[in-house]
Amino acid sequence: MYKVITWIICCTLAIGGSSAFAQPDGPAKVRAHWQSKQRKLIDEYMSFLSIPNVVGDTVNIARNAKVIMQMMANRGIGNVQLLKGKTPHTPPAVYGEVIVPGAKQTLIFYAHYDGQPVNPAQWADGLEPFSPRLYSGPLAAGGQPIDVPAFGNFQGEWRLYARAASDDKAGIFAILNAYEAVATSGLKLNYNIKFFFEGEEEAGSPHLHEILDLHRNLLQSDLWIICDGPVHQTGRKVVSFGVRGDAHVDITVYGPKRPLHSGHYGNWAPNPALMLARLLATMKDESGKVLIADFYDDVKPLSDAERDAIRKMPEIETQMKSELGLAAAEMKDRSIAESVNLPSLNINGIQSGNVGKMSSNVIPTIANAVLDLRLVPGNDWKRQQQKVIDHIRAQGYYVIDRDPTDHERKTHEKIAKVIAVDNGYNAQRTPMTLPIAQKVIAAVQSTTSDDVVLIPTSGGSLPLYLFEQYLQAKTIAVPIANHDNNQHAENENIRLSNLFAGIETMAAVMSMR
Amino acid sequence: MYKVITWIICCTLAIGGSSAFAQPDGPAKVRAHWQSKQRKLIDEYMSFLSIPNVVGDTVNIARNAKVIMQMMANRGIGNVQLLKGKTPHTPPAVYGEVIVPGAKQTLIFYAHYDGQPVNPAQWADGLEPFSPRLYSGPLAAGGQPIDVPAFGNFQGEWRLYARAASDDKAGIFAILNAYEAVATSGLKLNYNIKFFFEGEEEAGSPHLHEILDLHRNLLQSDLWIICDGPVHQTGRKVVSFGVRGDAHVDITVYGPKRPLHSGHYGNWAPNPALMLARLLATMKDESGKVLIADFYDDVKPLSDAERDAIRKMPEIETQMKSELGLAAAEMKDRSIAESVNLPSLNINGIQSGNVGKMSSNVIPTIANAVLDLRLVPGNDWKRQQQKVIDHIRAQGYYVIDRDPTDHERKTHEKIAKVIAVDNGYNAQRTPMTLPIAQKVIAAVQSTTSDDVVLIPTSGGSLPLYLFEQYLQAKTIAVPIANHDNNQHAENENIRLSNLFAGIETMAAVMSMR
Repeated sequence: MYKVITWIICCTLAIGGSSAFAQPDGPAKVRAHWQSKQRKLIDEYMSFLSIPNVVGDTVNIARNAKVIMQMMANRGIGNVQLLKGKTPHTPPAVYGEVIVPGAKQTLIFYAHYDGQPVNPAQWADGLEPFSPRLYSGPLAAGGQPIDVPAFGNFQGEWRLYARAASDDKAGIFAILNAYEAVATSGLKLNYNIKFFFEGEEEAGSPHLHEILDLHRNLLQSDLWIICDGPVHQTGRKVVSFGVRGDAHVDITVYGPKRPLHSGHYGNWAPNPALMLARLLATMKDESGKVLIADFYDDVKPLSDAERDAIRKMPEIETQMKSELGLAAAEMKDRSIAESVNLPSLNINGIQSGNVGKMSSNVIPTIANAVLDLRLVPGNDWKRQQQKVIDHIRAQGYYVIDRDPTDHERKTHEKIAKVIAVDNGYNAQRTPMTLPIAQKVIAAVQSTTSDDVVLIPTSGGSLPLYLFEQYLQAKTIAVPIANHDNNQHAENENIRLSNLFAGIETMAAVMSMR
Repeated sequence: MYKVITWIICCTLAIGGSSAFAQPDGPAKVRAHWQSKQRKLIDEYMSFLSIPNVVGDTVNIARNAKVIMQMMANRGIGNVQLLKGKTPHTPPAVYGEVIVPGAKQTLIFYAHYDGQPVNPAQWADGLEPFSPRLYSGPLAAGGQPIDVPAFGNFQGEWRLYARAASDDKAGIFAILNAYEAVATSGLKLNYNIKFFFEGEEEAGSPHLHEILDLHRNLLQSDLWIICDGPVHQTGRKVVSFGVRGDAHVDITVYGPKRPLHSGHYGNWAPNPALMLARLLATMKDESGKVLIADFYDDVKPLSDAERDAIRKMPEIETQMKSELGLAAAEMKDRSIAESVNLPSLNINGIQSGNVGKMSSNVIPTIANAVLDLRLVPGNDWKRQQQKVIDHIRAQGYYVIDRDPTDHERKTHEKIAKVIAVDNGYNAQRTPMTLPIAQKVIAAVQSTTSDDVVLIPTSGGSLPLYLFEQYLQAKTIAVPIANHDNNQHAENENIRLSNLFAGIETMAAVMSMR
């Protein structure tokens, strides 16, 4: 389904139009710049990816921040510094700026340098999360490991496998190399450019509000450009005006206090895995409809422009079903774009006892599930969590937020520990009709002959509401990663053509009219 | 709820009656024997427990077998040998015998030396499965690690923690030391005594039939005494005439081929954990009734004597609920003994994605559950598995026994890989009215002033039907472990008073009239 683009022959790739660039020769100059130093860029990127960046690993997070500061300094970016929050040991944001004489407006480019947790045992043979490796294509299509070519003859379909290869060190790579290309090529900038790279996005950005609040003067801008997430599944570039919010609920139900021999007690002692299965089964029906009371009630309706954009989005469901091995979608009558504009309930993980070789004949003591709730404008994340808690209570559970006492165990047949995890945030949506939004659309369109896909609400969750709340700032997301990048999971990867095209996209936005 | 018996003062422990012993002074002599060498017995046992014995670990299984042979030889047991099956690399049974001049009947004592798999991470701090440690009491009651006392002043409530401490090296310990006590004390034996220690019981004894078949002459006997499993929850001794059968079904349901970002695809891509939850929820209702068609249909009714024995069993439900932290049983209107005489469906483990710190925002690719089905006389284990498979199919699943092909994924919305695991066996029950059964009851009763609990069907599953099928042999189980031994789970342990009382029980049966 993918166009295989060989970069050594890709100088013929069509450029849609240069009107959005401040200079007509902008796109060609940017491309010539990165093409002249592909090997160097990839070497630097692999070195960057080899620094572990699991969110919360403060030692390695600090190492990443230091390397980013060096990369910024190397590119002549000014006022490079770490922006700390109020809470001690908060992973800092890395900041830098380029003040353009005469510029009246400011763009600030956002990406994040922390990554999702890793379970190395789940990665494919030969792959380790922090030992980046180049492959001739995606693993699922039989991609094989290859050496990094000496002279930089990279092919667009090659993949670089590592945690954060797409999410979201790719954003930092694209933004910094876009600036280098713009600056080296002498392209005119019409906006001051600021850079803001966050270090705990994957934890739900628990201290971002402190950083924004403490450094509000430094962070003033007319628009935040968020470089995170994937382009469209068709490969077409994307400008996205909103994101889903996110909230988590962690549920534990209780069986016997110690694991029991299932022969001696099976039929008599309640099995917590079965209790949890029954509880989860009450939450969503086979048509994908969440059965929790009032679950869809708060949703803010889409505007006409937003509906129109959704209508124009390419049909990708057939391709995606084939690629993912799915015969049908969960909500059969809705497109992905439509589904994403509804709140969702998803099970991230469920665990009780052991399966496989570790399985043994017991009645387990507990069963645990982690739910994530994706939110849309109108939802409040704490209210959405509360709906789930109320639902669990309505199923006859005694709900607490800690392990039960002996007395509680004696007096309640069904006990659930429900943690409304304190890392959620609301959805956010910027009107796509704003003049500066229209300029961004034109800039991205100038780098491609395919129609750019305009997305009112993208699936990825980012705490964009904080930018509005603390800085009264607008946000627009311009993602660059391939859609099949396995972000948040094992075998994360970036497709090289996306990585290099990302430089062009960021450069176009940076130097837009 | 336990009587704390201090062994240094326990010589006053009442002995119910000695009529079942061949000699009236039998019980006192046996007790004097083990009391005189407690420290030596415990040292030997801890050394035995320190040899890893996870079923299937052939190297260590062989080490265990060798040690057992040595322990038998040390006690003057004759014809010690390994009994192999037909299949290469089958863990051998360890055999030995004592031929008694003039004896017309033969008892054969069974235990097994392999243990359940271990997950060391699940064991309590300071405990490792194969580093046996003595504790001042059960962990749950605040037991603390203690040194092995120099002069053998062991207390009955102390616990020895290690994999197989109860299940079932305790059986081997009790049988061999019972023989040593009987022989050393010069007690008269009326039966030839044989010993048979199996090495793959925890795998469902897949090759036991081969061993029984190949060595049928050597293994002729009038009764197998099965020493495995726990005594009654009240602490009273038990004679059990049957066991549940066991069968497993391993279920995997399928979501997307790769883990998906739950923001981008949540609401659109089906979640396999939720699919599995819904499927499992159809299998059993809140009252504990299995909803699978014909699930209870084959059950052979209990005889009057069996019903009577069940009626006489002590009420333990109140104690067990308190001990296990349960407000109610799964089947509210049935005692444990009644529950055990019905087939059951239990979830041993369920897994999809990750929970806890490893949790991430994905839609997992698969969800897996392992079910165990406990069986009663009348059930056929393969037929019981088939009922589960038919049920899954009746829920709209396309059922296969391997991973789905791409074509199957395209054409079926709900796919389940269902493995009818090939390690099941049927239940077995010996009539308690047989004369030799009555002798066993009298022998066990002679070692205790409490009424022995007679159990028509015990909860533990053992492949006892094989003894009948291949040797036309009767079986009676005489267990010795404490009921709260955590067998099959983490923190397995044996209560010392059970370990030593087990010697007395086995000695009484060995030297019965």
